[in-house]
Amino acid sequence: MNQMRRLFGRNVLGWMACIPIAAIIVAIWGVAAQAQEAGVEPGSPEYIQGVLNAIWILVAAVLVIFMNAGFGMLETGFCRQKNAVNILAKNLIVFAIATLIYWAFGFSLMFGQGNGFIGGGGWFLSSTDPATYGLDPFPAGLPISIFFLFQAAFAATAATIVSGAVAERIEFLAFIIFSVLLIGISYPISAHWVWGGGMLSEIGFLGGTGFYDFAGSTVVHSVGGWAALMGAYFLGSRLGKYEDGQARAIPGHNMSIATLGCLILWLGWFGFNPGSQLAADEAVPYIAVTTNLAGAAGGVSATAVSWIKDGKPDLSMIINGVLAGLVAITAGCDGFSYAGSVLIGLIAGVIVVYSVSFFDNVLKIDDPVGATSVHLTNGIWGTIAVGLFNMDAGLFYGAGPNQLIAQILGILTIGGFTVALSSIFWLALKATVGIRVHPEQEFQGLDISEHGMEAYSGFLKESGALGGGMADALSSSSQEH
Amino acid sequence: MNQMRRLFGRNVLGWMACIPIAAIIVAIWGVAAQAQEAGVEPGSPEYIQGVLNAIWILVAAVLVIFMNAGFGMLETGFCRQKNAVNILAKNLIVFAIATLIYWAFGFSLMFGQGNGFIGGGGWFLSSTDPATYGLDPFPAGLPISIFFLFQAAFAATAATIVSGAVAERIEFLAFIIFSVLLIGISYPISAHWVWGGGMLSEIGFLGGTGFYDFAGSTVVHSVGGWAALMGAYFLGSRLGKYEDGQARAIPGHNMSIATLGCLILWLGWFGFNPGSQLAADEAVPYIAVTTNLAGAAGGVSATAVSWIKDGKPDLSMIINGVLAGLVAITAGCDGFSYAGSVLIGLIAGVIVVYSVSFFDNVLKIDDPVGATSVHLTNGIWGTIAVGLFNMDAGLFYGAGPNQLIAQILGILTIGGFTVALSSIFWLALKATVGIRVHPEQEFQGLDISEHGMEAYSGFLKESGALGGGMADALSSSSQEH
Amino acid sequence: MNQMRRLFGRNVLGWMACIPIAAIIVAIWGVAAQAQEAGVEPGSPEYIQGVLNAIWILVAAVLVIFMNAGFGMLETGFCRQKNAVNILAKNLIVFAIATLIYWAFGFSLMFGQGNGFIGGGGWFLSSTDPATYGLDPFPAGLPISIFFLFQAAFAATAATIVSGAVAERIEFLAFIIFSVLLIGISYPISAHWVWGGGMLSEIGFLGGTGFYDFAGSTVVHSVGGWAALMGAYFLGSRLGKYEDGQARAIPGHNMSIATLGCLILWLGWFGFNPGSQLAADEAVPYIAVTTNLAGAAGGVSATAVSWIKDGKPDLSMIINGVLAGLVAITAGCDGFSYAGSVLIGLIAGVIVVYSVSFFDNVLKIDDPVGATSVHLTNGIWGTIAVGLFNMDAGLFYGAGPNQLIAQILGILTIGGFTVALSSIFWLALKATVGIRVHPEQEFQGLDISEHGMEAYSGFLKESGALGGGMADALSSSSQEH
Repeated sequence: MNQMRRLFGRNVLGWMACIPIAAIIVAIWGVAAQAQEAGVEPGSPEYIQGVLNAIWILVAAVLVIFMNAGFGMLETGFCRQKNAVNILAKNLIVFAIATLIYWAFGFSLMFGQGNGFIGGGGWFLSSTDPATYGLDPFPAGLPISIFFLFQAAFAATAATIVSGAVAERIEFLAFIIFSVLLIGISYPISAHWVWGGGMLSEIGFLGGTGFYDFAGSTVVHSVGGWAALMGAYFLGSRLGKYEDGQARAIPGHNMSIATLGCLILWLGWFGFNPGSQLAADEAVPYIAVTTNLAGAAGGVSATAVSWIKDGKPDLSMIINGVLAGLVAITAGCDGFSYAGSVLIGLIAGVIVVYSVSFFDNVLKIDDPVGATSVHLTNGIWGTIAVGLFNMDAGLFYGAGPNQLIAQILGILTIGGFTVALSSIFWLALKATVGIRVHPEQEFQGLDISEHGMEAYSGFLKESGALGGGMADALSSSSQEH
Repeated sequence: MNQMRRLFGRNVLGWMACIPIAAIIVAIWGVAAQAQEAGVEPGSPEYIQGVLNAIWILVAAVLVIFMNAGFGMLETGFCRQKNAVNILAKNLIVFAIATLIYWAFGFSLMFGQGNGFIGGGGWFLSSTDPATYGLDPFPAGLPISIFFLFQAAFAATAATIVSGAVAERIEFLAFIIFSVLLIGISYPISAHWVWGGGMLSEIGFLGGTGFYDFAGSTVVHSVGGWAALMGAYFLGSRLGKYEDGQARAIPGHNMSIATLGCLILWLGWFGFNPGSQLAADEAVPYIAVTTNLAGAAGGVSATAVSWIKDGKPDLSMIINGVLAGLVAITAGCDGFSYAGSVLIGLIAGVIVVYSVSFFDNVLKIDDPVGATSVHLTNGIWGTIAVGLFNMDAGLFYGAGPNQLIAQILGILTIGGFTVALSSIFWLALKATVGIRVHPEQEFQGLDISEHGMEAYSGFLKESGALGGGMADALSSSSQEH
Repeated sequence: MNQMRRLFGRNVLGWMACIPIAAIIVAIWGVAAQAQEAGVEPGSPEYIQGVLNAIWILVAAVLVIFMNAGFGMLETGFCRQKNAVNILAKNLIVFAIATLIYWAFGFSLMFGQGNGFIGGGGWFLSSTDPATYGLDPFPAGLPISIFFLFQAAFAATAATIVSGAVAERIEFLAFIIFSVLLIGISYPISAHWVWGGGMLSEIGFLGGTGFYDFAGSTVVHSVGGWAALMGAYFLGSRLGKYEDGQARAIPGHNMSIATLGCLILWLGWFGFNPGSQLAADEAVPYIAVTTNLAGAAGGVSATAVSWIKDGKPDLSMIINGVLAGLVAITAGCDGFSYAGSVLIGLIAGVIVVYSVSFFDNVLKIDDPVGATSVHLTNGIWGTIAVGLFNMDAGLFYGAGPNQLIAQILGILTIGGFTVALSSIFWLALKATVGIRVHPEQEFQGLDISEHGMEAYSGFLKESGALGGGMADALSSSSQEH
């Protein structure tokens, strides 16, 4: 935890000395990045449609950005109170860091002009030419600013998914560096292949059929899910999780905020999917409806399956069912029928229940919040579903297997790349700053050990390794003073 | 709690066998429900106005959908921690179920072409002809998709209102089935009378004056309130509530999330009322202002009255005052003056304080969150207020009594119908699956007994029937393992 | 706490007698305030642009209004559980009161036609002539309704900032009256100078250069911050805060909701800053990006500095760093480069860490949530930054010192005025109703003493002056019955 101090010493002022230098650089360099010539007269219908597009995507971006609150509350609520501050801090800082890294590098790697593998140019959002980022000039195309903001919000989502799977035992600094690498390198490269005009956007031997992922079941959710899976794997399970070869349930500490988190995520998905249309037109509300139907169906089927399977409706499964349905609809939300959307959601809800059980009991990979089952497993399912249920290109609609093959190819390519790169990142971090806290710190809880504070000061907590981190309730509660 | 297992056995796979069958049905039947011919050229002002309408109603629908988080946090916070998981689960699943039921049946019953009593046709949102649902073709009318989403969000609200009043003692399955019946049958029929061109939209012997409920004080809130009242009545009061003939206050367990819930609901009302204009025009912001003034006025007067009456400003009453003002303004928010809106809100805040006391102490109907007083009593008040304060048709503006009579007729007709149908539903459920949990389950708390989990694992809780559900704090807290 | 009863007695009905009188007044006076003649044909591009402006500002206003939930959760989470109800109640009622006071007086004082010092006219939003409030006729200008709503949301923000700094020891009634005075008199007057065409909007001896505050670093945040500082100063520190000359940390009770509050505020800032464009055009998304970059940068630098300085990354500092960046960008978010915005945010994050320490340890002014450091110190920094980094008028861009001088003048004028008026208000309140609760009430917690209820009933809490307010955990928990 004192890595930062080792790097900089206590001499904050020395570190701050770079501020005036930066000020001078900014003053010289920051030449009117705002200037965006319109070419079209304000007040004309074309201009108004352009502004409407921009305002709608701003609203959508804001909804997606608010998903950080959703992930934060969901993941925190599903973990123990002794690690709440740590999870909250991770989720808050990761969006801040993602914004800056994506501004500096990620956006250019993803949308800058480059080759089929990687983009580049216009770093630090410094270009005022829309073509630099593959955009048409406003008002035909979106303003650079809002296209960047929407994409930055997506990039942050990928990193936030990781946060949940590695919770309750990861070093804070290791998580931050991993997020920088994921958002700065891995995510923008693989996303470039699909959304930046890269190598998966048109696959030659399939007659030009491209891998199709409308809003990111694979590009965002599976990528986050693969990175999360590798993280959970290299970290190992939490203390006490598999003590006698059996998976023990470690209950979350605050189901109220977890449920709130789920509903905030549901809200945010109305920006995530309909916003991915990248314009204000008739397709937008259609996408909102397919998205909502699938989320609802996922919640219903996960409830039913968990009820039948375990005899009681498990709130965690209702929550994860909703999210599974939302992840699954994401890849093809613009091209499924309503009934197809309901069916895809119903299947997602079934999948998530068995996937959680599979990772937990069979693979024995400890994912405290079920992020892998929600985002990876159902990201894959949703991406495959495009090849089956898309009304133009789906196998079930008589369009042949090309789209389905493209989907599987995309899943494998992006999955392989993300697994490889994530593994390198995690292993490099393990060999340098270390990725896992000491067992005593884990037992005590990361809030005290990594942040020196409690999430719920003033409340008496339970003793024991699972429920709390301290010797006994009464003594523990006075420990903080 | 094992009803589900009785219905299906543990054989989940058997239940899942219907999925491939469904896939085939979808593939054959799901013919391009998306296709919506425009007839108007994209880029023309008329088209842009149509898109703007659709995007605005999407934003409004999203705000209304987020009200589920508001109701969830409000109702959970106002109840005891031992029932928190149950209330959260109810509020989450009810929106999912409402979406699906309303998609399948409700929307058609409400807006489909039928007679003055009931609509029909275009089930499962299968029609691509706007006239099926009473809409003009886009862009003159809203796209079917977004009109459906907005209406589905409204339908879910009615069911969510019930959740609060029946909290802490209802069987989970009974609540779900009741919600299905309410949203699938009762709500769409009575709403058809007003919003679907049915029998209350033009009343012959009043010279064609129609019952007027702009955004649903009666159609949504009172209907939810009547159903809630019947539920609370047939269920009976919670254990210990009226032990010696006196109503005992059973304090809520989390006023932070309850207040958050109130503020989320306030947020959502900016979709609920201004969105009910069903278009983007000058009236929309006007409605937002009247709505906000009434909510504020309700909060202020309820605070003042509870302060004077009980000597202290009660946070629950500030919350319920705000909500009362918002419910009351809903019926006529488009046609009140600003000053009228403030006055209606002030009166709502007074009414809610006395209504809570009346239901609690006089009628001895146990409504843990005050849903009846907020949604039923003030839904009635707001509906009557249209007949008094509407600037065109109100008695106080010299327009005669016709509107007021129509309002009272509407309240009685819809109230009578909802009471009758709700009573049949509740009694049928009582006679079959049962509506109330066993006293031991209620004492223990529904979270453990119905869901097998705790909301706040790791915290020590109080013993006793009112504060917690367990023998004593320390033993109870270990009970969950 | 019985001031209300002293004022009115228990005779609520007497108080209610004014309602029928009010009804008559409303009926006579409330002449069609809605009527807004367009002059431009609906369906024309100009009209559609006008509606788009109005809808966008409505969305922005709604986001700003939701900041009340952000402030409520942030401030409550940062304080102790024994005062949670009190803070929640203050934050909820203050928005309600702000709405009504600003409707009655504040809006007219701020935007009504008057002189360079104060506006007036069109009280109670009674004028239908846009010119009364300095607006062009719709659709060229915004509808009065939505301009009012947006401004009312801003006014409420100023009062809510005060709430945090005076938390845990202020009399509820004193806070309410202070809020009325701040929003009804002080805030609208100083805001009139800048946004209402008043004396700071064009400064003669600077060649007409006006004080520039695009979205309110000074007009809203610093004004709230000065009022908060004076409140904290006149109230004195909380019991036990500076017992032996040393500042003791009094930990907040719920970091989950505090973090949620931060993220809600971040969300709201996308209404606060981009909405201040008061139109839907290309500048709006640009402002959203500069705002987001600065918030992110503030979070990152505050994390780094607190990590280096104290050896651990402090969640409170991440939160306050984000908010500091957002406050600092507010004054000039429309005219900074992207790189400039990042730099301004980075500096804000550094400033807030040292400012918190300065107020706490050097000035020994007890501000439980750091409101002064976030809103006052960084409000000043952001306002100065306009004079340095604005791409047209900033010193670093070669535009000379005039803008910088104007900024400093504005800061001093508005700061001096707000300090003077706030001091008068606080001292007058101290001399009359009293501003501080009795020490026993403070020790017990304001929830029980001022509101007669607990925020977290059913949970066992810690004993002691800092963590809880009661003799010991077990007895305390039964105290509520």
